[in-house]
Amino acid sequence: METVSTAKSHGGVQGVYRHASAATGTDMTFSVFVPEHAAGERLPVLWYLSGLTCTHANVTDKGEFRAACAEHRVIFVAPDTSPRGDGVPDEDRWDFAQSAGFYVDATEAPWSANYRMWSYVTEELPALVASAFPVDMARQGITGHSMGGHGALTVGLTHPDRFRSVSAFAPIVAPTQVPWGRALDRYLGDDVAAKRRHDAVALIEDGARVRELLVDQGEADNFLVEQLRPELLARACADAGIALELRMQQGYDHSYLFVSTFMADHVAWHAARLG
Amino acid sequence: METVSTAKSHGGVQGVYRHASAATGTDMTFSVFVPEHAAGERLPVLWYLSGLTCTHANVTDKGEFRAACAEHRVIFVAPDTSPRGDGVPDEDRWDFAQSAGFYVDATEAPWSANYRMWSYVTEELPALVASAFPVDMARQGITGHSMGGHGALTVGLTHPDRFRSVSAFAPIVAPTQVPWGRALDRYLGDDVAAKRRHDAVALIEDGARVRELLVDQGEADNFLVEQLRPELLARACADAGIALELRMQQGYDHSYLFVSTFMADHVAWHAARLG
Repeated sequence: METVSTAKSHGGVQGVYRHASAATGTDMTFSVFVPEHAAGERLPVLWYLSGLTCTHANVTDKGEFRAACAEHRVIFVAPDTSPRGDGVPDEDRWDFAQSAGFYVDATEAPWSANYRMWSYVTEELPALVASAFPVDMARQGITGHSMGGHGALTVGLTHPDRFRSVSAFAPIVAPTQVPWGRALDRYLGDDVAAKRRHDAVALIEDGARVRELLVDQGEADNFLVEQLRPELLARACADAGIALELRMQQGYDHSYLFVSTFMADHVAWHAARLG
Repeated sequence: METVSTAKSHGGVQGVYRHASAATGTDMTFSVFVPEHAAGERLPVLWYLSGLTCTHANVTDKGEFRAACAEHRVIFVAPDTSPRGDGVPDEDRWDFAQSAGFYVDATEAPWSANYRMWSYVTEELPALVASAFPVDMARQGITGHSMGGHGALTVGLTHPDRFRSVSAFAPIVAPTQVPWGRALDRYLGDDVAAKRRHDAVALIEDGARVRELLVDQGEADNFLVEQLRPELLARACADAGIALELRMQQGYDHSYLFVSTFMADHVAWHAARLG
């Protein structure tokens, strides 16, 4: 693991790191904020998965999480959203391929060689973070924005043993039912079962359970009606007995000006559950 | 004035605006955050002048000012750092010309045609902001970072009647004594008196007064020793009876990871003085 940069911020250290990923076959870059802490102390960790068009940098620059993470003493990790580089298959669009890995392990060519973001964010990166940072891996929470909200929900629902707390900002909750989710058809082909494993609403319908979820959704979000459809998550959670706190936020759009507004709330919510 | 973008954030509205500037002869872009407020109510305004290489966007994205401005109900205005565009003289360097206007009205050719940032930030933009936003121009504060800290100090010291509160992050305090300040030689030529009017330490030596100043400075700032030299400001303030609170911040660098850490403090400090 190579350190790209570190700087003191809000009493802790904001770092950016790069490593050769076995999962994706590429170099991957991610950011970690470690609050001030005593020598030898291990802190809970909040994973943040980013949305379409993003790298680790968007939330690192604009997320306004550091003050809250410093206050609540939570480590914040932000992975990239896809493999990248000249050798990585790509297309000239913003909602598929590079910057749009959708947190799946692709099985269809040519994507299957590199687009293994599920393995990356659930296995390889956690192992690396556990080895290199003062995290208490018994106290993990996960959140994310838009495509990353989809990632947070599907990862959290698949590993309720591992994540004590799951939240999302304007998540894609049912990719198999919305246009952005056509990416799953291209990454996963005709494997309906695999696609249902990467769809939060389908996962819940198929029996996945967490105790509770926190979701903030802007009412002025341009993607609300066609792509995000939180009512589908609300119905699935109601049917499944999952306590969903879905907060429709009047006037807010899909941008980081929305995410940053409610970030401190989410950090505090996770911190309360991570002890 | 044209609205480039607006979005709700932290209960208020973060906007970006563009207008044809008479001062610079170019289009100029700036950002304004207006907290939630009652109809007809006018709020105090904090001006933020940015540093070398920056536009309005750096602090707007990374400054972490909105939560504090919403809490204290302060409008936050971030101008650009120079005129820009194909017709504007420029050089292939980052510390002079475009993105490096140094908040002076240039008198030397070819800079004098467009590089009139003093007039822009002290006259034209305040008039525009006063006409278009719910600001109480009797309650203004000013701050800035690096070159923008230089701007905040020189503007604040020149107009103590107008600005009730003046602070800075890692400011250039004595441009006539440091390498970055050679920009003043090129903008202002041999006019020693003019250059002293754009040097905070010289202004104080020449009699400019404010009651107090707040300055945060990272001790790990790469520019500290050669370019920033806060000890010169400390000495001038001590000699002049200006209450300077100079906070040397252990471990902090020159970046927005530093600025954002102390932004809420500065907003609160200004708010307390702006009533």
